Amino acid sequence: MGEVLATYLIDGTTNIEKKADSIAVGLTVGSWTNLPSVEQEQLKKHKGRVVNTEILAGKSVITIGYPSLNFTNDIPAILTTVFGKLSLDGKVKLVDLSFSEDLKKVYPGPKVGIEGLRKLLGAYDRPLLMSIFKGVIGRDLSSLKEQMKGQALGGVDIVKDDEILFENELTPLTNRIRVCKEALKESEEETGKRTLYAANITGRTFQLKEQAKRAVDAGADLLLFNVFLYGLDVLQELSEDPDIPLPIMAHPAFSGAMISSADYGLSPSLLLGKLSRMAGADLVLFPSPYGSVEMAKEETIKIARELTAKDLYHRAFPVPSAGIHPGLTPKLYEDFGIDSVINAGGGIHGHPGGAPAGGKAFHQAIDAVMQGQSLKDAAQHSVELRQAIELWGGA
Amino acid sequence: MGEVLATYLIDGTTNIEKKADSIAVGLTVGSWTNLPSVEQEQLKKHKGRVVNTEILAGKSVITIGYPSLNFTNDIPAILTTVFGKLSLDGKVKLVDLSFSEDLKKVYPGPKVGIEGLRKLLGAYDRPLLMSIFKGVIGRDLSSLKEQMKGQALGGVDIVKDDEILFENELTPLTNRIRVCKEALKESEEETGKRTLYAANITGRTFQLKEQAKRAVDAGADLLLFNVFLYGLDVLQELSEDPDIPLPIMAHPAFSGAMISSADYGLSPSLLLGKLSRMAGADLVLFPSPYGSVEMAKEETIKIARELTAKDLYHRAFPVPSAGIHPGLTPKLYEDFGIDSVINAGGGIHGHPGGAPAGGKAFHQAIDAVMQGQSLKDAAQHSVELRQAIELWGGA
Repeated sequence: MGEVLATYLIDGTTNIEKKADSIAVGLTVGSWTNLPSVEQEQLKKHKGRVVNTEILAGKSVITIGYPSLNFTNDIPAILTTVFGKLSLDGKVKLVDLSFSEDLKKVYPGPKVGIEGLRKLLGAYDRPLLMSIFKGVIGRDLSSLKEQMKGQALGGVDIVKDDEILFENELTPLTNRIRVCKEALKESEEETGKRTLYAANITGRTFQLKEQAKRAVDAGADLLLFNVFLYGLDVLQELSEDPDIPLPIMAHPAFSGAMISSADYGLSPSLLLGKLSRMAGADLVLFPSPYGSVEMAKEETIKIARELTAKDLYHRAFPVPSAGIHPGLTPKLYEDFGIDSVINAGGGIHGHPGGAPAGGKAFHQAIDAVMQGQSLKDAAQHSVELRQAIELWGGA
Repeated sequence: MGEVLATYLIDGTTNIEKKADSIAVGLTVGSWTNLPSVEQEQLKKHKGRVVNTEILAGKSVITIGYPSLNFTNDIPAILTTVFGKLSLDGKVKLVDLSFSEDLKKVYPGPKVGIEGLRKLLGAYDRPLLMSIFKGVIGRDLSSLKEQMKGQALGGVDIVKDDEILFENELTPLTNRIRVCKEALKESEEETGKRTLYAANITGRTFQLKEQAKRAVDAGADLLLFNVFLYGLDVLQELSEDPDIPLPIMAHPAFSGAMISSADYGLSPSLLLGKLSRMAGADLVLFPSPYGSVEMAKEETIKIARELTAKDLYHRAFPVPSAGIHPGLTPKLYEDFGIDSVINAGGGIHGHPGGAPAGGKAFHQAIDAVMQGQSLKDAAQHSVELRQAIELWGGA
């Protein structure tokens, strides 16, 4: 029989066994010791079990097994079971979930994943490079097109919409995709290098599929999706729809409300890592450990590990974001390895030579790192990289 | 032009004006001071504005106005704008949102609200009484029917499903509604008192409407919904659907992940109060300040105030839950007033005389409170209330 194991970090270390028992019983059959034995016999296959209890750094770590007989195999039902009422019960953090194989195989995982995206781009032997539109609110289509072309000319692999760009009169989704794709075509004709465009899918929940299909028809290469405003199950719905064949990039907007506290909510690696991958994200953005938007390095490494570990599913690209400039490339490679996306906003647009030079500086840095060369050496014959390092440091 | 004001509680009190400016610009037009004046002219209607900054109890309180021109008028877009990236930016808590009237009127609010539910029940001059199925996992239809009848015989106004009861072989939704309604019919024939049944709507997001319609067709009186596993927008979708004419009871499962920290996430009164009501909840459960599942009393009062304050929308019933027994009725009335629902699980089922006696004890307590009588006096001629007080205290 299937089972989900949930691991909690709980404040306090007294009565840990009793606490574990009360969760295992309270969130499943409700009561146990006072039940007649005939009822115990009938209910035992529904009863949660205490898998492990231990004390770690002054807190309790408790793992409970929940029989899959108690829930339908969907993320809302599972999270309601393991962390519905319990999320409100004092200092309790859900740090991990572990699904038995029969349950796992129902989830789609990434549609194309790391290997599929590499194939799309013909880029196999290096981290990918992504950039983000900047300051697009209130701008028109020609402004967007110009930005897109500037980014593409620098050779970035993917350009993503700003996550706060919704349907709007100036740059409505399908027109936006049309002009951005024109810019990418022009750029590819000049450079021979393909760049993909991730369009932001937004609006009311029950219109998302229709909007995604319009993006598909208009020629978007990927979908950007603010998963945590809609729930992981909606990501899964989009990912499973055969009429939406595009890879999905999960944006962490709003996830900070659920992952930032040490005492409450979910661990970053569970929400942005394991569950996002299971539900179908091909790429997942999360705060880098280097920038102004902060996440502890250990947490970011755990997210990346969940996204790229061997599993039933395709592997998903970790995209550590914020505060990234070319000089950080060796550090990014050291921390996140080849199977990651280097994602920059200001680090591309803010280059003294403009966005094309910003992209080139990153590629020079990536080439250097892949060849085992120091950025300092590479900068001697790479003018864009040299300018980037002079501005932001890092060699 | 429409605007959403967002109020944040931010760690630290230095550079508060600068921080406020960086939010107002960063989450709207992206940059400002270095823009050419012609661009400033073009973008000024999109730029966020700092409405207020103050220092309170060692923290910064900052209110930013976001022009509605920047987003579509839906909860995911608004929360992405005001608390997307920002949710991940250190210790920042979103404590309130205020919508201009033009934006507000698009949201449905409760379908029937307090007045509509009172009319359905013919109960105008007292708090309502609700009870919860207990230990339903692994039980069959006959067991559920028996539980339902026991609760109804005690005269409760509403019985709700356990939120962890999903579609399952033993008690599938439509069969469950059928037998529960049979029990309610039998009970009404005996007592002359009507009891409503709130059925739990669960499963995959894009099948929720269909499931809700099956619940409607099967005769459910209300829908119970684990809103925070799906997002407030899905609540709004269900509430707006004319083919789902039932009042909706919002369960706070998983909300603890977003509201429990003092430093991160959303305030309980915003998430469980204002936004739940706007999106269409007719009743909202939240942890009572008396029970084992804890919430500070001040927070619970604020939630209730958001649900019942005069506004464009119908008023919604606050349902403080957990740890409620008859002896708490005067306290509940004092804290939450007449327009609230007294909701008990163990305080009904655990009565020495069984669930019917539990319901009666609560009604005796409610009658006493409404007549200005002490529970001690009322208990002298009310045997069920006396037994409840002997067991749980409170007079």
